Amino acid sequence: MSAVNLAKKLSMFSEHWSPKIVSCFNGHDVMLVKAKGEFNWHSHPDTDDFFLVLKGKLTIQLRDRDVNLGPGELFVVPKNVEHRPIADEEVHVLLIEPVGTPNTGDEATAANKVNI
Amino acid sequence: MSAVNLAKKLSMFSEHWSPKIVSCFNGHDVMLVKAKGEFNWHSHPDTDDFFLVLKGKLTIQLRDRDVNLGPGELFVVPKNVEHRPIADEEVHVLLIEPVGTPNTGDEATAANKVNI
Repeated sequence: MSAVNLAKKLSMFSEHWSPKIVSCFNGHDVMLVKAKGEFNWHSHPDTDDFFLVLKGKLTIQLRDRDVNLGPGELFVVPKNVEHRPIADEEVHVLLIEPVGTPNTGDEATAANKVNI
Repeated sequence: MSAVNLAKKLSMFSEHWSPKIVSCFNGHDVMLVKAKGEFNWHSHPDTDDFFLVLKGKLTIQLRDRDVNLGPGELFVVPKNVEHRPIADEEVHVLLIEPVGTPNTGDEATAANKVNI
């Protein structure tokens, strides 16, 4: 139960596509991720997926269109909707997902989310 | 299901202590609020309370200490914990609470949350 400085937390890691848990809220993990390149196409059967871009640009591809996000822009992917995040350059994103949600949509390939 | 530009949304209102809904996520409202001055002491029996400061400074008084937040800093008040937000100057904050949560902790005094 302490304040979380996002910039300070972001300075603590550099790897891509590996969300770090910085807080929790109503059974959800509040996470930071750095990303560059293409992620996999996936969906989450049980949860919406919250993205808030802090730095850089993120494209969230949907099957029928692209959603382009810059700093200070957020998007919620509804549950069951297939999506693929892409970033040409490094992007920093705040994510919120229920505790235990596999980031790839699949336990077998999901990143191990750790607290920082 | 569209991208939300927080700065654009913040330009659409000026009143204080009146959260505006900009998105929804797993049964929660994602809201923006502008605040200045002292709010009331309150708690939420059924939900944690998520605050992310976007601009300005916010103090969240707890009964045993103050939590001071600046831009890019977040804090989650656990459910049932009494708190009072205070801002000497105008502050802009992203809030997340379950749909229908009274912002004052009491239906009788709660702001009417509207979508923008």
